[in-house]
Amino acid sequence: MEGVDHLAFERNKAQFDVNDMKIVWAGSRQEFELSDRISRLVASDPVFQKDNRTALDRKELFKNTLRKAAHAWKRVIELRLNEQEASKLRSFVDQPAFTDLHWGMFVPAIKGQGTDEQQAKWLPLANNMQIIGCYAQTELGHGSNVQGLETTATFDPKTDEFVIHSPTLTSSKWWPGGLGKISTHAIVYARLITDGQDHGVHGFIVQLRSLDDHLPLPGITVGDIGMKFGNAAYNSMDNGVLSFDHVRIPRNQMLMRVSQVTREGKFVHSGVPRQLIYGTMVYVRQAIVADASIALSRAVCIATRYSAVRRQFGSQKGGPETQVIDYKTQQARLFPLLASAYAFRFVSEWLKWLYTDVTQKLQANDFSTLPEAHACTAGLKSLTTSATADGIEECRKLCGGHGYLCSSGLPELFAVYVPACTYEGDNTVLLLQVARYLIKTISQLGSGNKPTGTTAYLARVEQLMQYQSDVKRAEDWLKPNVVIEAFEARAAGMSVAVAQNLSKFTDPEEGFQELSADLVEAAAAHCQLIVVSKFIEKLQQDIPGNGVKQQLEVLCGVYALFLLHNHLGDFLSTGCITQKQGSLANEQLRSLYSQVRPNAIALVDAFNYTDHLLGSVLGRYDGNVYPKLYEEAWKDPLNDSVVPDGFKEHVQPILRQQLRNARL
Amino acid sequence: MEGVDHLAFERNKAQFDVNDMKIVWAGSRQEFELSDRISRLVASDPVFQKDNRTALDRKELFKNTLRKAAHAWKRVIELRLNEQEASKLRSFVDQPAFTDLHWGMFVPAIKGQGTDEQQAKWLPLANNMQIIGCYAQTELGHGSNVQGLETTATFDPKTDEFVIHSPTLTSSKWWPGGLGKISTHAIVYARLITDGQDHGVHGFIVQLRSLDDHLPLPGITVGDIGMKFGNAAYNSMDNGVLSFDHVRIPRNQMLMRVSQVTREGKFVHSGVPRQLIYGTMVYVRQAIVADASIALSRAVCIATRYSAVRRQFGSQKGGPETQVIDYKTQQARLFPLLASAYAFRFVSEWLKWLYTDVTQKLQANDFSTLPEAHACTAGLKSLTTSATADGIEECRKLCGGHGYLCSSGLPELFAVYVPACTYEGDNTVLLLQVARYLIKTISQLGSGNKPTGTTAYLARVEQLMQYQSDVKRAEDWLKPNVVIEAFEARAAGMSVAVAQNLSKFTDPEEGFQELSADLVEAAAAHCQLIVVSKFIEKLQQDIPGNGVKQQLEVLCGVYALFLLHNHLGDFLSTGCITQKQGSLANEQLRSLYSQVRPNAIALVDAFNYTDHLLGSVLGRYDGNVYPKLYEEAWKDPLNDSVVPDGFKEHVQPILRQQLRNARL
Repeated sequence: MEGVDHLAFERNKAQFDVNDMKIVWAGSRQEFELSDRISRLVASDPVFQKDNRTALDRKELFKNTLRKAAHAWKRVIELRLNEQEASKLRSFVDQPAFTDLHWGMFVPAIKGQGTDEQQAKWLPLANNMQIIGCYAQTELGHGSNVQGLETTATFDPKTDEFVIHSPTLTSSKWWPGGLGKISTHAIVYARLITDGQDHGVHGFIVQLRSLDDHLPLPGITVGDIGMKFGNAAYNSMDNGVLSFDHVRIPRNQMLMRVSQVTREGKFVHSGVPRQLIYGTMVYVRQAIVADASIALSRAVCIATRYSAVRRQFGSQKGGPETQVIDYKTQQARLFPLLASAYAFRFVSEWLKWLYTDVTQKLQANDFSTLPEAHACTAGLKSLTTSATADGIEECRKLCGGHGYLCSSGLPELFAVYVPACTYEGDNTVLLLQVARYLIKTISQLGSGNKPTGTTAYLARVEQLMQYQSDVKRAEDWLKPNVVIEAFEARAAGMSVAVAQNLSKFTDPEEGFQELSADLVEAAAAHCQLIVVSKFIEKLQQDIPGNGVKQQLEVLCGVYALFLLHNHLGDFLSTGCITQKQGSLANEQLRSLYSQVRPNAIALVDAFNYTDHLLGSVLGRYDGNVYPKLYEEAWKDPLNDSVVPDGFKEHVQPILRQQLRNARL
Repeated sequence: MEGVDHLAFERNKAQFDVNDMKIVWAGSRQEFELSDRISRLVASDPVFQKDNRTALDRKELFKNTLRKAAHAWKRVIELRLNEQEASKLRSFVDQPAFTDLHWGMFVPAIKGQGTDEQQAKWLPLANNMQIIGCYAQTELGHGSNVQGLETTATFDPKTDEFVIHSPTLTSSKWWPGGLGKISTHAIVYARLITDGQDHGVHGFIVQLRSLDDHLPLPGITVGDIGMKFGNAAYNSMDNGVLSFDHVRIPRNQMLMRVSQVTREGKFVHSGVPRQLIYGTMVYVRQAIVADASIALSRAVCIATRYSAVRRQFGSQKGGPETQVIDYKTQQARLFPLLASAYAFRFVSEWLKWLYTDVTQKLQANDFSTLPEAHACTAGLKSLTTSATADGIEECRKLCGGHGYLCSSGLPELFAVYVPACTYEGDNTVLLLQVARYLIKTISQLGSGNKPTGTTAYLARVEQLMQYQSDVKRAEDWLKPNVVIEAFEARAAGMSVAVAQNLSKFTDPEEGFQELSADLVEAAAAHCQLIVVSKFIEKLQQDIPGNGVKQQLEVLCGVYALFLLHNHLGDFLSTGCITQKQGSLANEQLRSLYSQVRPNAIALVDAFNYTDHLLGSVLGRYDGNVYPKLYEEAWKDPLNDSVVPDGFKEHVQPILRQQLRNARL
């Protein structure tokens, strides 16, 4: 049966051209071709195979990662790959490594926060990997609260140096990837102290290890923080702990693009606006949203294919049993996740545009859209990463018992993904930031400050509070404006309700704290509106391809009506829809599932993932699941011997009733 | 700081006596003392330490498990522990092992399904562990659908034997714990075939391995199925694959209590009613619900203690930052889980009573309450395991980044727990069974069949459909009957609504399939009602102890009102409460959180878990988190050497720009 496509009968059902959808998913033909080429390059390279990595112990796994990272760099040089290609290659290798932080955080930090002079000195070294860097911000005692970091950088005017020091145990740097065993340098965030005065947290380039023998430099204690969640997953990364005992660095190793310390120890601001740093945050978070769509789509691809392969119950007269994907309970859990993967993809495309827009405005000294862009990206980071983490685990459960096997690929995908809910801003903390922005926007409505961008709808808040949907039949829920208006009315209603409750408190901060759970819910409703809107806007663009647009309309409906069903309480409480309309939405949702069904396999094929990337027996393109599961089992180290290690010492004495004399 | 209790200031706040609450949690003073004694015994034994088990590779971990299992058995013998004590001891060792299946499935199957003669032969061998058994039901191709199993047991009248055979690849037994490397025997479920006729699935005792050299017997292929989700977790268990090539066993190794095959090959039923087997199912599922309360309470204990230790933001004038547990967003996520742990504990107590009740009735040939008991336990298994799996992961996220470290104990707890959502009935499949029972109950209302037990409220369905809550102030939501009536009206309303929609279909099965997502939601509403009711019933009993009852009332309110808030759409759609009443419930919920806050630490202390069992630096009783986290980190194998394995071969050539010549 090798070479047979067991899912061909499913692929033949599709009502659109999968090749057209591949281009839409990738964003452009060029993007598609790039990803296609690099992913095949990685998949065909023996060094990049993932075989049995979940059974490796920590040291072996780490060594295996170093080998892959080095080989990736070698290929980048040999094939003269450009920055974008190299980055794709690293992502398709699909094993977290110190290089992720070097390229993703260390180099950008120097570019963004270093002066021209600093960039000229450090970037060539970093770009050639003559030094390897990490990003040492988080401490043992402080994650979310960056302003509370305890590490100090005290200027010593006598020697023109900064003294980097860890005054407490909790000030130890903790978590930075690549720090534990590999990085030679770090951007260290520390409180700048000049002349006894604390100027808040700034970044410093600090060398950690000798470039000769790789040993930590004097005054530096550094190591790995230990095992993390999951098989393989982030255990291939040397997240580290670091403390400083009065380590001295030259003054010019403070990143001085925005603020500077002069030879005399004076703290001065350069003319460069501090807001530039927020631009970087928008960039990082749009990348996280794009990653969410990738991670979720991987899980959905595996669960969808296996749901078509797997049969259970419902055999009639000895015929084959029913494909699991035909059960409505399976569809009602799986298809909203499929729709979410597409929704997150399109909102990440829009965020990319937003980043460009913000950057252009910043360069023209226009900071007006920055707060809205900042709130919006914070909220979308929170919404998409939470939904993706939960969605991956849901996909795992949708595969039944076999989803629990590492060979399904899902346990590792989950474990490697979940930190996204915590890093770059804890998801709850981020939603509170969004809520704060919404409440501020509402409070300023009277004063003529017109809300912009994704909050523009709040200008119509009075109408929206009166809004009552005019849906009469289930099909009415297919009209984009009907959906948008309901989501706008619900989001506005929730924000206004909590704003009114806030106004009852004399101390606004106390109110904000007391009502924070409601604020989080209002912020989530606002973010869901954004994702729905951007999906609808995408559909209003010119989408080429045979049957593609129709299929995306179905997915958009699934995404929106699933959210509506899951948050029905919000829609009913704000009075924007009636109970009857809610039930019509649910009816329409069921009918949309039936429209997704014949297209499900083609919709996940459109992601164009290689079997190498998926790393899943259940999600194999050819659907040849059971023989490969069986084959995979025998590779486990426990099967190396028929009688396992430890049997003779520990189990045989029990069976022979000789336990009392046994030495355990 | 060793020996200092960093959480003493929290413990002093409690408004009840923690020792009284310990007894309530345990169920009785005797139960408390038993658990306390055995857990300390395990915690103080060096062989049972869990140090660094998450960093072991598969073989080492498995060997470590064999050692612990043997030591546990040795202690059981030395200390002459009774069955209950021995079972506690195994559970406090807290590492899945082949012995779990031997004692938990193999022995009970012989007791429940074997004839007196079979029990006389096999039980002494099993009880002395002269043989070790597992439970071989699930196959590669069939999990949920037990009736679809493919393994055959064909009676050969010539030799008076059964021929056990695996006719297809998918008929390979797959998943049974203890099967892979250790079990000498198995209860194998296979289709009984006599004289060419298929009599459905029955159990057979089959020897798998030689008692001399432990090698598989002729015709038997057996091995481990490979790595599973998580660090350590279930990788200490040898879940196995097994196939038979015409393996012969004597006729008297079919378990014949309910059905028999005679010497002539005739298939006959004994007088013993088949329903007895459902009694066992009720037993197994009540144990699963009890386990859910234990697993969830462990996670809640860790997250609650660390939330009191951890401080972030909110420092005023250089004072300490705010304890994370004081944030309302943290309370709104954590306290409902704390309340759920208690709720699940009490409903499991009630299920224990239900099992006794059902068993007594079965012995009196009264099968009347069995279907309701069966539906009820299926539903509660589904509800509690899903909520617990999600709750553990939520607790992990509530610990911020550090929850992602294995030393937090939470990753392993999650990975080891989640299979409970799938085994012993997939949670969605189970809810559909509940729904089927509810629909049947409703359809029979007219015919004078009075609904019993947990469905008794459906007798009042017409009143409930008209029900409108009379809540006027937030405090009204503290009245038990107000809560119960709202939950009854919501559950009845949802069941009736879906029953009405079902009646529109000409083919009822088609309707059931089409509306299955709605059916699942109606079933979940019914199950939530049961948990809320049993919590309230518990409070109506005499609860001794200083302040204990008042505190449990608060938790009961949190549990019910949190559910109401999360499923507000259901309550509003069925018209049993108004939007205003929903918002009053939310207000009351917030006020209850404030009442939980000072008692939170004592409420988790009441679980009486040892630091050994929790296995969590974040959840340490003494709250001395940061120094221990730091200490723990250095134990990782990666820290054995300053320069890691692989650095010289793979990274140094990059730094020295000698990559082109490097051999990777």
